[in-house]
Amino acid sequence: MTLELDKLALQAFLDEVFPQVAGEFVVETVQEMYSEIRLPVAEKHLRPGRTVSGPTMFMLADVAVYATVLAMIGKKALAVTTSCSLDFMRKPAAGKDLLAKCTLLKLGRVLAVGDVLLFSVGEQMPVARATLTYSIPPK
Amino acid sequence: MTLELDKLALQAFLDEVFPQVAGEFVVETVQEMYSEIRLPVAEKHLRPGRTVSGPTMFMLADVAVYATVLAMIGKKALAVTTSCSLDFMRKPAAGKDLLAKCTLLKLGRVLAVGDVLLFSVGEQMPVARATLTYSIPPK
Amino acid sequence: MTLELDKLALQAFLDEVFPQVAGEFVVETVQEMYSEIRLPVAEKHLRPGRTVSGPTMFMLADVAVYATVLAMIGKKALAVTTSCSLDFMRKPAAGKDLLAKCTLLKLGRVLAVGDVLLFSVGEQMPVARATLTYSIPPK
Amino acid sequence: MTLELDKLALQAFLDEVFPQVAGEFVVETVQEMYSEIRLPVAEKHLRPGRTVSGPTMFMLADVAVYATVLAMIGKKALAVTTSCSLDFMRKPAAGKDLLAKCTLLKLGRVLAVGDVLLFSVGEQMPVARATLTYSIPPK
Repeated sequence: MTLELDKLALQAFLDEVFPQVAGEFVVETVQEMYSEIRLPVAEKHLRPGRTVSGPTMFMLADVAVYATVLAMIGKKALAVTTSCSLDFMRKPAAGKDLLAKCTLLKLGRVLAVGDVLLFSVGEQMPVARATLTYSIPPK
Repeated sequence: MTLELDKLALQAFLDEVFPQVAGEFVVETVQEMYSEIRLPVAEKHLRPGRTVSGPTMFMLADVAVYATVLAMIGKKALAVTTSCSLDFMRKPAAGKDLLAKCTLLKLGRVLAVGDVLLFSVGEQMPVARATLTYSIPPK
Repeated sequence: MTLELDKLALQAFLDEVFPQVAGEFVVETVQEMYSEIRLPVAEKHLRPGRTVSGPTMFMLADVAVYATVLAMIGKKALAVTTSCSLDFMRKPAAGKDLLAKCTLLKLGRVLAVGDVLLFSVGEQMPVARATLTYSIPPK
Repeated sequence: MTLELDKLALQAFLDEVFPQVAGEFVVETVQEMYSEIRLPVAEKHLRPGRTVSGPTMFMLADVAVYATVLAMIGKKALAVTTSCSLDFMRKPAAGKDLLAKCTLLKLGRVLAVGDVLLFSVGEQMPVARATLTYSIPPK
């Protein structure tokens, strides 16, 4: 399989389908079955203690898998998340962006499964991990 | 075990620890090991197609378990989510609030486990389910 | 929706498709979108400490969802598990059978989602919970 | 952190604490925060279609995380699984052993989190993935 969307095309598509969060997700890398997406952490992503909120981490992991699937199959805005598992392991470092490293483990006709590690940029150990399953609409 | 916080005390505490979202989570019911929390759905919770976003559903489930744990053990802002599993089963109905029905399955010395069903208010079948584990700080 | 298989038909089908474990799963109750399956605990299900092993609990939860799906859609041996989340909350009581209470939360054209609580028979609090997703083969 | 148990010591300990399955789990590699454990697939692990059963895959993933934790903290038979998420992505190849590659993502004072990819030996894409959380008993 080869990429249907390169880095620029993927960034443009994300900004188009999520206009309310345009600019919030920066495509850093996109390869076959793999991508890295960065979230520039802003005030609205924080919760007391100045750590990144859980919903923000979920959102970034979700977008990372969506983006990696789309990069492979092309623009299909209708792929939907069917399930997710998350483990929160460390507090994200204050004042650092979050980076999602996503690997597609499966890209089937009906289901795609992506594994995500979330890092505070520059740190070695992940702050969280997630696996998400997407249902892919029939052609 | 009995309740440490009643409905009013729990509502006040949630508004205090999450000032940035005060008023977003309405405690409808609180009982031993059980609560119902409603999210008045607003524009910012929606995504294209006018359905409630995944991060919003995660956030509501997370808050519901947190609230149910606190109602039982009293004010401990430091309880933290360690893991979560989510299944998204139906699109939330447009224009309806979301209601989380949370049952604590375990309330141990170190870990608490809560099961949540999320409903579009007035609908019979859940839109999503979630299980969250919280780590409880030592006294 | 109505039941395609009643209690006797479901028991017969389970014994037929899992001949190597015939008699290990006892269908106690089957209703629309709900079933109860009992595992008579034997020596081979135990691990040190004489508690029921994790794989045994996984197996019972998996079979319970499979059985509840089949009761609704009829004999389709090819439905396959695509994902599972499990939480282990208490040690199963020694010398007591395990009972799975399974509720289908979704029975779609392509995916089914079942929620399971596992009990040591006669105990009030569950020993474990599980959610399993099954992929249903096209007709 | 350094290893408390090397390959030989870890193999001996697994055979000792799981006497009923001695020889079923072969420690292939053990490093800091990482191990590879092989399951020689036998008739009893198969189900109709001659594919490896789900409970067998759960068991191997569970043992792999347990072994990797013990290699780091030394012999503590009492570490217990508290939660697990699993995704089944492909049918295991018939007649091939299963190999678990386990990475510890967290090794805390109270909780350890391990990520596992399961492979049919010699295949490039994983048949399943799992994340397990272990609760570590206080000293």
